[in-house]
Amino acid sequence: MTPTPQPLETRIAQAHGREKADLVLKGGRVFDLVTGILLEGDVAICGDRIVGTCASYEGKREIDVSGLILVPGFIDTHLHVESSLVTPHEFDRCVTPRGVTTAICDPHELANVIGTDGIRWFQNASEHLLMDLRVQLSSCVPSTDMETSGARIEAGDLKPLMGHPSGIGLAEFMNYPGVIHCDPPVLDKLALFAGRHIDGHCPQVSGLDLNAYIAAGIRTEHEATTAEEALEKLRKGMRVLIREGSVSKDLDALQPCLNDATSAYMCLCTDDRNPLDIAEHGHLDYMIRRLIALGTSPLAAYRAASLSAAEAFGLKDRGLIAPGLRADIVAIDSLEGCHAQLVLAGGREVTEAAFALRAPQHEIGRRSVKAPAVTAADFRTTSNDSRTDVIGILEGKIITEHLHEDIAIVSGDKAPDPARDLMRITVVERHGKNGNIANGFVRGFGMEAGAIASTVCHDHHNIIAVGADYADMAVAVNRLSALEGGFVVVRDGTILAEIALPVAGLMSLEPYEAVRDHMVALRGAARSLGIGIEEPFLQLGFLALPVIPALKITDRGMVDVRKFEIIAG
Amino acid sequence: MTPTPQPLETRIAQAHGREKADLVLKGGRVFDLVTGILLEGDVAICGDRIVGTCASYEGKREIDVSGLILVPGFIDTHLHVESSLVTPHEFDRCVTPRGVTTAICDPHELANVIGTDGIRWFQNASEHLLMDLRVQLSSCVPSTDMETSGARIEAGDLKPLMGHPSGIGLAEFMNYPGVIHCDPPVLDKLALFAGRHIDGHCPQVSGLDLNAYIAAGIRTEHEATTAEEALEKLRKGMRVLIREGSVSKDLDALQPCLNDATSAYMCLCTDDRNPLDIAEHGHLDYMIRRLIALGTSPLAAYRAASLSAAEAFGLKDRGLIAPGLRADIVAIDSLEGCHAQLVLAGGREVTEAAFALRAPQHEIGRRSVKAPAVTAADFRTTSNDSRTDVIGILEGKIITEHLHEDIAIVSGDKAPDPARDLMRITVVERHGKNGNIANGFVRGFGMEAGAIASTVCHDHHNIIAVGADYADMAVAVNRLSALEGGFVVVRDGTILAEIALPVAGLMSLEPYEAVRDHMVALRGAARSLGIGIEEPFLQLGFLALPVIPALKITDRGMVDVRKFEIIAG
Repeated sequence: MTPTPQPLETRIAQAHGREKADLVLKGGRVFDLVTGILLEGDVAICGDRIVGTCASYEGKREIDVSGLILVPGFIDTHLHVESSLVTPHEFDRCVTPRGVTTAICDPHELANVIGTDGIRWFQNASEHLLMDLRVQLSSCVPSTDMETSGARIEAGDLKPLMGHPSGIGLAEFMNYPGVIHCDPPVLDKLALFAGRHIDGHCPQVSGLDLNAYIAAGIRTEHEATTAEEALEKLRKGMRVLIREGSVSKDLDALQPCLNDATSAYMCLCTDDRNPLDIAEHGHLDYMIRRLIALGTSPLAAYRAASLSAAEAFGLKDRGLIAPGLRADIVAIDSLEGCHAQLVLAGGREVTEAAFALRAPQHEIGRRSVKAPAVTAADFRTTSNDSRTDVIGILEGKIITEHLHEDIAIVSGDKAPDPARDLMRITVVERHGKNGNIANGFVRGFGMEAGAIASTVCHDHHNIIAVGADYADMAVAVNRLSALEGGFVVVRDGTILAEIALPVAGLMSLEPYEAVRDHMVALRGAARSLGIGIEEPFLQLGFLALPVIPALKITDRGMVDVRKFEIIAG
Repeated sequence: MTPTPQPLETRIAQAHGREKADLVLKGGRVFDLVTGILLEGDVAICGDRIVGTCASYEGKREIDVSGLILVPGFIDTHLHVESSLVTPHEFDRCVTPRGVTTAICDPHELANVIGTDGIRWFQNASEHLLMDLRVQLSSCVPSTDMETSGARIEAGDLKPLMGHPSGIGLAEFMNYPGVIHCDPPVLDKLALFAGRHIDGHCPQVSGLDLNAYIAAGIRTEHEATTAEEALEKLRKGMRVLIREGSVSKDLDALQPCLNDATSAYMCLCTDDRNPLDIAEHGHLDYMIRRLIALGTSPLAAYRAASLSAAEAFGLKDRGLIAPGLRADIVAIDSLEGCHAQLVLAGGREVTEAAFALRAPQHEIGRRSVKAPAVTAADFRTTSNDSRTDVIGILEGKIITEHLHEDIAIVSGDKAPDPARDLMRITVVERHGKNGNIANGFVRGFGMEAGAIASTVCHDHHNIIAVGADYADMAVAVNRLSALEGGFVVVRDGTILAEIALPVAGLMSLEPYEAVRDHMVALRGAARSLGIGIEEPFLQLGFLALPVIPALKITDRGMVDVRKFEIIAG
């Protein structure tokens, strides 16, 4: 929903005080992100813009914000709305009241299932929200050639999408080997966006590889998981986006890099954050609280959350509470608390009534799960070598370990072994393309029985299942076809908990509160299987993403990400 | 001269080290402007771009920079090349070897004399220089309606100039009353550049006036002369450009505002700096040295000189020594010394040989001085009131004081009075439009005899003269017509020193070294008249600029700038 701009003449007249401002916030203090002090004075707003600060103003409407501190609206510099498991409209309802007035999204989850129609759907959604949803164009659909996705997007497909006002540039360029080695389709995409913003994704890439990747013109990156990695990227000119998702939680590790001197070059993002985490902890507001609790200065924390983000992505019209800029304002209880008491997004007050006025959006991606019906036998392995590659989960990270275990072949199969925490992990192609089924091993779930399965399976979004029992895995996978996608927990043939995600197998049609409740039930059911991981479904989904080291699995087999090759079927 | 870019594939290959780099700087240390540390390693360059840092590289050509520190090329964020008194080609030769690899100029001096042809001439020049000369489009030609200029530029005249690659946006919007009060031609220009960069100029504007000015979308400003003024502008979202010209020297006053936390939002500029100052003290290199000597951290000083400047003006391709960015690099002796030992501009080594290879540029603006022949009688006043407005010079500032003196009327004239330091100041229209002659008084030159005159007379560039003796003033003014413009010092009917500025009465056709020598002679001659001001001709020129408070003079009379009106003819 585009806020209503006022003519320049009206803005200047209201700024000057010779006309009453459309809206005045009275009695608060503005936290100045340039000099770091609290400024007294009213904030005058004309249409979608701030027009006056540090002065006394009269308004056609006035809101008393006495005792509150005003900070610029927060900017999430990289996220996939799909990971919130709700539609863009519900995502807006969920996080805008927390102060997130701009979100720079990459719609590549949906695009992997239904192609450019999914990107257009996000572009369309951006026209109707209270927040300013910026829709980057997905660079890597699929992420690699080692997976079967529902769609494939080349440079030529992106070109017609480039004119939309929500666009900034090209979304995270995950195919870093393709950049470093100059794969022709990769160069085509980079050339198409030459001179525009190209966002990065290069976990654990360093040295000459990193130089080659950055030399391609890639300027922002969110995959650093250690301070050392972040510092190398900063020193080579990348803006580092500190990520705190539901799985990959990098804030604590990167916090030491963020200070008053570096804060102009660091940003915040959530990448993938589910509604349960948002409800329990928060969104960017949580990150700000946590940073300050860890010792970051409020100046550095709030800058990273707004001004520096605006700069990094060339959004010159926001990031400060200052005349001429978008009226994206969060009134908070205290700098340390960061609890939003009032949010203005483009000059509009964020309320349930304002959400209710948004034009609704058409459904998309229904009936997208076209998987073969499976039986317990489909989960048996075929290897005749007891030496086995095992995915080692690192909780709170989307990188994994590449483990090697000896697993005995019994009756022609290497079976799951709860005693050694070795579970079957399986990916079933579900886009109706080839019905691939790939089996492997994973360690780290701590599962004792049953199975869990999901259609959120990055980024190809096939069906991914983990289980101690093949029959339960079959029940879980077949149930996902019936649900049009979702999450399922099964034990002894019985479905313990589930959620339907009928929008492309990725998003619910329910309000975020209902999704949160389903997630609570699913978490409880997963725990009853012995699973110790806090967010089993999100962690599960990333085990399929072959652009994050070290060992992953797709429908084509286990993938050694460091070598960028399939090592077992 | 556009540097030669290499294909993306070549850049990546050289960045990765699998091909030899075009050029490698070996053995130096890079001063990282993000984290503030010195980085070891080679710098690899491919065509016009840096492609690798913090690693060992082999190059087709290698330069040993052992013992030197590498910093990003300096960016002068606001200047008038004309104030260097030389052509763009000579300006390039003069300052690029000092490390200034980007200069954002406003060609409004030339444009005031010959109109848009002058802007096109600068645009054309920018295509042939070693430095990257960015040519802003002049917003206020003439600066006000209280002066007679050689040309007038409206929004419609600017539109066809907007496509040139040297453009960033609209140059300093000096008509701040026009912005604040929404004059229609002003709004037309602001509307034409909506969403683009609009540079500011609003000396001593504060409070609601400043809010109105900034709300118009004006984001950078270089007229702050006190820390208080700079802080208000910073807090209202403006990027503050610290200026150290030859007349207006604001560095010492603003230095306390610049620190590691604010440095991302502050820049450096010279505005108007003559070749004598450049030769004796330096250019941006001088400002950096001076800032560090005053206690500014090297991180803050070098950031303001490059990275922050690039950010403020949206030049995303420069500002750091990092892969993918323009190879604008200065190898200096030490951070404190800032003496350039080697300069690369867009990957090209800056040498006399490289300057000699530049395509020459055609002359422009010849025979532009069309003033009436004057006699001593033309300098008499006509007022019958002994109460007199007097311009009070503040040395080192372009703002003036508005003084009030009682001057006796003798034989129908109020004569100059060296004993009270009250000199005649006269502006003679010289564009062949109306032959206006306006007389007034000025205090502060300390003159005892003779006269000085100039065609550098901001921004209308009529003839301005100051004298103790009317006959000498007539000789000086008439000499300028013969010279096609310039500076003249006269005593007892004899020309003591002069320089011809035949390019529109503003620029010499000689090399900058010759201009510097003329300036030394002129300064000596001015001193022989008793003038105590260090830079009398530059100071003189700004006494005619009616957009800088408080009292100025144009060909139409004395101007009360605070009221924006002519108060005496």
